[in-house]
Amino acid sequence: MDATEFRRRGKEMVDYVADYLEKIENRQVYPDVEPGYLRPLIPDSAPEEPERYEDILKDVEKIIMPGVTHWHSPYFFAYFPTANSYPALLADMLSGAIGCIGFSWASSPVCTELETVMLDWLGKMINLPPQFLAEKEGEGGGVIQGTASEATLVAMLAARMKAIHRAQSENKNLTQGDIIDRLVAYTSDQAHSSVEKDSVIAGVKIKHIPTDDTFVVCGSALKKVLNEDKAAGLIPFFFCATLGTTTCCSFDKLLELGPICNQENIWMHIDAAYAGSAFICPEFRYLLNGVEFADSFNFNPHKWLLVNFDCSVMWVKKRSDLICAFKIDPVYLKHDHQESGLITDYRHWQIPLGRRFRSLKLWFVFRMYGVKGLQEHIRKHVKLAHEFKDLVLQDDRFEICADVILGLVCFRLKGSNELNEALLKSINSARKIHLVPCDMRGKFVLRFAICARTVESTHIQFAWKHITMLANELLRSQKLQ
Amino acid sequence: MDATEFRRRGKEMVDYVADYLEKIENRQVYPDVEPGYLRPLIPDSAPEEPERYEDILKDVEKIIMPGVTHWHSPYFFAYFPTANSYPALLADMLSGAIGCIGFSWASSPVCTELETVMLDWLGKMINLPPQFLAEKEGEGGGVIQGTASEATLVAMLAARMKAIHRAQSENKNLTQGDIIDRLVAYTSDQAHSSVEKDSVIAGVKIKHIPTDDTFVVCGSALKKVLNEDKAAGLIPFFFCATLGTTTCCSFDKLLELGPICNQENIWMHIDAAYAGSAFICPEFRYLLNGVEFADSFNFNPHKWLLVNFDCSVMWVKKRSDLICAFKIDPVYLKHDHQESGLITDYRHWQIPLGRRFRSLKLWFVFRMYGVKGLQEHIRKHVKLAHEFKDLVLQDDRFEICADVILGLVCFRLKGSNELNEALLKSINSARKIHLVPCDMRGKFVLRFAICARTVESTHIQFAWKHITMLANELLRSQKLQ
Repeated sequence: MDATEFRRRGKEMVDYVADYLEKIENRQVYPDVEPGYLRPLIPDSAPEEPERYEDILKDVEKIIMPGVTHWHSPYFFAYFPTANSYPALLADMLSGAIGCIGFSWASSPVCTELETVMLDWLGKMINLPPQFLAEKEGEGGGVIQGTASEATLVAMLAARMKAIHRAQSENKNLTQGDIIDRLVAYTSDQAHSSVEKDSVIAGVKIKHIPTDDTFVVCGSALKKVLNEDKAAGLIPFFFCATLGTTTCCSFDKLLELGPICNQENIWMHIDAAYAGSAFICPEFRYLLNGVEFADSFNFNPHKWLLVNFDCSVMWVKKRSDLICAFKIDPVYLKHDHQESGLITDYRHWQIPLGRRFRSLKLWFVFRMYGVKGLQEHIRKHVKLAHEFKDLVLQDDRFEICADVILGLVCFRLKGSNELNEALLKSINSARKIHLVPCDMRGKFVLRFAICARTVESTHIQFAWKHITMLANELLRSQKLQ
Repeated sequence: MDATEFRRRGKEMVDYVADYLEKIENRQVYPDVEPGYLRPLIPDSAPEEPERYEDILKDVEKIIMPGVTHWHSPYFFAYFPTANSYPALLADMLSGAIGCIGFSWASSPVCTELETVMLDWLGKMINLPPQFLAEKEGEGGGVIQGTASEATLVAMLAARMKAIHRAQSENKNLTQGDIIDRLVAYTSDQAHSSVEKDSVIAGVKIKHIPTDDTFVVCGSALKKVLNEDKAAGLIPFFFCATLGTTTCCSFDKLLELGPICNQENIWMHIDAAYAGSAFICPEFRYLLNGVEFADSFNFNPHKWLLVNFDCSVMWVKKRSDLICAFKIDPVYLKHDHQESGLITDYRHWQIPLGRRFRSLKLWFVFRMYGVKGLQEHIRKHVKLAHEFKDLVLQDDRFEICADVILGLVCFRLKGSNELNEALLKSINSARKIHLVPCDMRGKFVLRFAICARTVESTHIQFAWKHITMLANELLRSQKLQ
């Protein structure tokens, strides 16, 4: 395919993409396929000779689309949102064409510099304390990671390195293994499973701090476990606070937890993967109070800030903490400016070496929407969540299982887990809308997350009508049994 | 921006991309900017109100492009290639629009299933032993990782878990820390720095095995270190072989190393990040002989197989080895088909949770080029490398520093390191072509990597003429001193 054909096919693809997103409501949100559906539909091996583009595009509708879960359908209420916007798609096209690999400043200076400045922009949008920003030539700064799991892992590894150095400076006879055996990371019993996975990767113990009745970690709960663990000779080194848990969007009490972590020399990382985007609205910024105590903070614009996956942003107070955990410098990656202290080589801030030019997406989205446009998007979602909550509350067969603060509503039929499992099954089998469940202290609960950029009140009203219809059927059939 | 405006702007962007790639020769391959160039050119913070798209696009030429290192310029001979092709760009547009997050089968079935089948296609293209393929419902299978560093890390973590379990099954009193203190990973003294970084993340020791005169690890060199380490009470658990080292594209002797690893219960991972793509040509497949002894194998189609970054492919003989190292299963990620054994949840195969629909790029590229088209691309690059090598050999002031097997030529002026450093500096300062150096046993060597998809003999001839002109100047000025 040469440039001439690309011009033609690219424009067709632009129309295909616009059609797909404009008419996505008409597609069934969750596919009908069974595991293994695809293999019989395509050849056993790659073709020897080039095929016609028309045939590939035909197969997109015939083979690919029937197996897609349509995350951008306004009938998709599962997991958490993943972002999608036209400005981000345009930026990604440009980023793909430039196709630079930004592991060092020299490998493509703008790839590094735009990222640093965009992270400052975004930091200011959420009113992050200035120590986290790079602009004043302070010790902090921001970086784009692929996912929140990676951001937590990077923070945990930096914390591990600091803890090992500290323990060895106090007792030179300790081996790394001696110390690792005693290190303990902490997080909420409601935290995302990726935090536990990160601890497996880092090879350290993790303990889940019990949350209170509202699924929130309080200072006293952390303090209690810390005291027990220290008495048992363990070394607490890392606490991952969650703002907006996956289960029910609860918020750990940073203002209680932060001072404890600072006092105990524990690295506090804040995972606000979903909720973080809301902090651009002044009325939700209070949820971030206490971030000043944190060592690192992360959220995912690729969830709720209209920037396509992947774009998980992370700030640290001391960038040297990350760099010390990872820095390894071979000759083929050295460059003239490296020792100047003025530049950033982002490869020392992350797990992989290579990285795409992702800050372009932030730049396009911030400029095309403006802060106001992005705030509107957040507020619309929160409003729709409250609309759904109000519908649930009007039907006394149902209950709301957690405070609705942002765009997630946890609800269930009053009754057994089996009943609610049956309800969810009937909802997802009907394929009109798509939800996933969660487990709240043994209760099987349905999560209704406002997801699509284009979701409106009509979709919420439809979803609730549909859910109650299925609930009616279910309850009727149960009575008959 | 609504769909109507996206149709217009998207088509303009397609033209911009086509123009950029068609006329990339006219751009200076390496930018003139100094560290910190960007910040003064853009506002301190994000705009409150939306801006005009025209203004953003103007800034792309005014602010972004002057800071780009043009990796797809035919005058770019630095690092290793990163791939870029029109079919891959089209697939990425589609993938961006679908914007699904494929962490589990249910989260978008086709995202998982196409990946599994494409990895089988690609495995067959390089004639990988059938144990690595998923199609026969065997124990192996392939996965797309972001980068080779992540693939090595995943393999190392799986190996670490196996080694810990084995050691604890032999002696229940050993703690994880006791074992980690004794674990040793091995790799070539020529291996990519990311392998060492991975060992830092995994918290294990790493030793670099001395290579022979041709920068290759032989069986005897590994055996010697293993014997010493075992005698010292250490536990060898992981060996990362390199096919196509970053420094000089040398190939470790798999046929000697593999049996040793198998015998010693050491996980053998093969990193063929750059070279792996060449194995689709029968005449280069011999370089992969011995892969049958490996536990895992990885290469980067995003380097040399015309699939845009990121797309690093990895196969394992036993997928359960990866899954055991990572599997953590919360309710909100469970789905009906999970326990059927028929499906793959790729989140257990990788570090992050989220993942894009990257197999679409493989599918588009394989079908639009056909195996023959891809083979042609590889062969053209290898031929051009030999053309450059022959030019160097005709000038007896220069020397070739390593066998030219694929698309990399290591060369230098006969003389001091200072002389060669000065030559590289004058090459990169002139900005006509771009190269990076390497260190070969204390020798400062210039690396000339065939990179761009569109590079032709004329660019090679130009580059050599330019290098010799700068060398003439340099040698003349030195004589005058």
